Amino acid sequence: MKNLTDYVRGKVASAKSASIHLALVSSADKNKALYKMADSLLLNRDKIINANKKDIVCAVKNKLSAALIDRLTLTEPRIESMASGLKYVACLKDPVGDVIEHYKTSSGLRIKRVRVPIGVIAMIYESRPNVTADSVGLCIKSGNAIVLRGGSEAINSNKIIATILRKSANSAGLPEGCIQFIEDTDRKIVSELIRQRQFIDCIIPRGGEGLINYIRDNSSIPVISHGKGVCHTYVDMYADLKKAVAICLNAKVQRPGVCNAMETLLVHKNAAKKFLPAMMKEFEKERVEVRGCKLTKKILKNVKEASAADWYAEYLDLIVSVKIVSSCDDAIKHIQKYGSHHSDAIVTENKRNAEKFLKGVDSAAVYLNASTRFTDGGEFGMGAEIGISTQKFHARGPMGLKELTSYKFIVEGKGQIRR
Amino acid sequence: MKNLTDYVRGKVASAKSASIHLALVSSADKNKALYKMADSLLLNRDKIINANKKDIVCAVKNKLSAALIDRLTLTEPRIESMASGLKYVACLKDPVGDVIEHYKTSSGLRIKRVRVPIGVIAMIYESRPNVTADSVGLCIKSGNAIVLRGGSEAINSNKIIATILRKSANSAGLPEGCIQFIEDTDRKIVSELIRQRQFIDCIIPRGGEGLINYIRDNSSIPVISHGKGVCHTYVDMYADLKKAVAICLNAKVQRPGVCNAMETLLVHKNAAKKFLPAMMKEFEKERVEVRGCKLTKKILKNVKEASAADWYAEYLDLIVSVKIVSSCDDAIKHIQKYGSHHSDAIVTENKRNAEKFLKGVDSAAVYLNASTRFTDGGEFGMGAEIGISTQKFHARGPMGLKELTSYKFIVEGKGQIRR
Repeated sequence: MKNLTDYVRGKVASAKSASIHLALVSSADKNKALYKMADSLLLNRDKIINANKKDIVCAVKNKLSAALIDRLTLTEPRIESMASGLKYVACLKDPVGDVIEHYKTSSGLRIKRVRVPIGVIAMIYESRPNVTADSVGLCIKSGNAIVLRGGSEAINSNKIIATILRKSANSAGLPEGCIQFIEDTDRKIVSELIRQRQFIDCIIPRGGEGLINYIRDNSSIPVISHGKGVCHTYVDMYADLKKAVAICLNAKVQRPGVCNAMETLLVHKNAAKKFLPAMMKEFEKERVEVRGCKLTKKILKNVKEASAADWYAEYLDLIVSVKIVSSCDDAIKHIQKYGSHHSDAIVTENKRNAEKFLKGVDSAAVYLNASTRFTDGGEFGMGAEIGISTQKFHARGPMGLKELTSYKFIVEGKGQIRR
Repeated sequence: MKNLTDYVRGKVASAKSASIHLALVSSADKNKALYKMADSLLLNRDKIINANKKDIVCAVKNKLSAALIDRLTLTEPRIESMASGLKYVACLKDPVGDVIEHYKTSSGLRIKRVRVPIGVIAMIYESRPNVTADSVGLCIKSGNAIVLRGGSEAINSNKIIATILRKSANSAGLPEGCIQFIEDTDRKIVSELIRQRQFIDCIIPRGGEGLINYIRDNSSIPVISHGKGVCHTYVDMYADLKKAVAICLNAKVQRPGVCNAMETLLVHKNAAKKFLPAMMKEFEKERVEVRGCKLTKKILKNVKEASAADWYAEYLDLIVSVKIVSSCDDAIKHIQKYGSHHSDAIVTENKRNAEKFLKGVDSAAVYLNASTRFTDGGEFGMGAEIGISTQKFHARGPMGLKELTSYKFIVEGKGQIRR
């Protein structure tokens, strides 16, 4: 264990000292490095694909599912997309140095609250190797050093990508050590990492619930967690039913395997008779399995009955639970009880119910007359995202560059002393 | 242990359900409640003083220091000051509902990022009973339910204050359960509290380093910690020496026992010969003990020599360590190595060095030509503060009402679906 501890400590300490210098690097120099990193990925695409092949062979041997193998696979277009992602981040506005507020106090001090990088961010993630390039891009642009710890299934791909990025960052003049990749896939590494409070300022876990909960429960370092998404759409009695059908269909089927897809559909009792059969027609076309409450089954006779567990379920699949509620308040209560505070929508043309829902539902994103599928850094105009936070602390919802910063107070005086 | 767990769980679960309603209470109703709470403290001042006497008797019996007993003692003026503190918070702007940003996306969605309360805040604190009233005021105003766990030395005072506040909050119509006081002083309570992630959204510990470190190391709930303040003033070679003497004197002696007082004075070698003797004269008048580096001792012959430990020390007393440095960069390096990222100042009339210092020193507050003693919510124009954060996560520096909030995204569409 001693060697493992030393190994981890060496990596994170080096990231910490790099972070002090990285915080002062100009936007132009960071952008130049991002371009160089992107070009280097393209130049080395064959090497990357070869390394990736090793991971695929292992995955096949270990009988990973076809979906997982697909997520793991790197093709030329996927490498091109990683590279263009880095170039895109280079074009985004640098948040470091932004003045959040600026005022003069009664003692005549001029105070500026100015964005600064957080410091060192540790990414602990599973599966998709593009996360390596995406998170390096966002961290570097926001002035943060990064420590990467990917899953063992993508170790060869992650390693080559991280090496390429690190080398081109160094040759572009970024501080040595600002990109750290942990090559050892020993699971003990994670428990070492989450104890390095002196060197790591924030941990972002991306992966299964088990990994996230383990880190959150055992880390003494702040964690930004991406919890599950049990997203609801509530079709109000004042809904435009055509809009409602389109929105619900999109929220369920456009990409069912992601956290902002709808899992439960709530329908006002006065809208149900007209809305549900129309909705069902569309769901049937897309082979969506419907699990309904008792009242729903009176209208949609052939659907399965939902069990208590269904209201808590994040299916990530073509399944939806449907419940008839008797008021907007009931819908809010249901979401409060079973939801995951991710993304929830109301479809209505009634202003009062819209306001009540948008104010009363305590989720990272609340929608009026739109699909929950929009909860995404790109769609929200942040340019890119490092993830979607389901916590209220530090950052909530989609996290872009700004959310990867902290701030400091710069106070300018003319000799003021405190009385 | 079962009973203790149930007891804590009952309290925090009740706070959680109250928080859902409290988040929706209008500013006017919260302010009405704050006024009622303040009046009730004044009406019950005799009861409070009697309860406080019990704590003082115990404190004397337990041989607490005179300073601690003074901090613990409640007098009529101190109760009046608690009450006026609550009324003052009532007059501050309610952060809940504030629109942080507002924009339209390319898909035509109108997005507002709006401030919301964090939820349930647990205060775990030691000694001074006024913290009870202060933190209740700030939490209620910012729409957060609060769970209070004070130290055993102030249990009688805290209990009566919390009871008065809770009762008047209820009678003013705030949701039942939004102020919870933990009467049991068993130390195990703290370890129970910091595991209630389901019900507590944030923990704010105030007290000794031991308490804070224990909580930070063992909590699975986000913590905002108030670390120590090893604050520096750097007197540059381009300093106005008159300003420098006034600023350093103020930073050291105006209130030496607090976290924003100066502990180390850094002096440029070219300024030292002129500045140090003038400074020493003032320090001597105020009986400040000086511990100098070797070079300092060449100028101030009679001072003690600083040991390695002095550069890390938070004296909280009339002691200062003095070091001569050979450049602004050296000063920054010293602060980076020994500082606590709290408050650090440069005294200079040189723009380039000022900018270098303000940018390069990674502290919650960095000062040009002013005393570090200004790091305070009141002085910074926040009206009041619940503490000073020395971490970069969520909030940094003085924390007022705004820093006790999170946000949500309110997204309004006209039927948009994702392509």
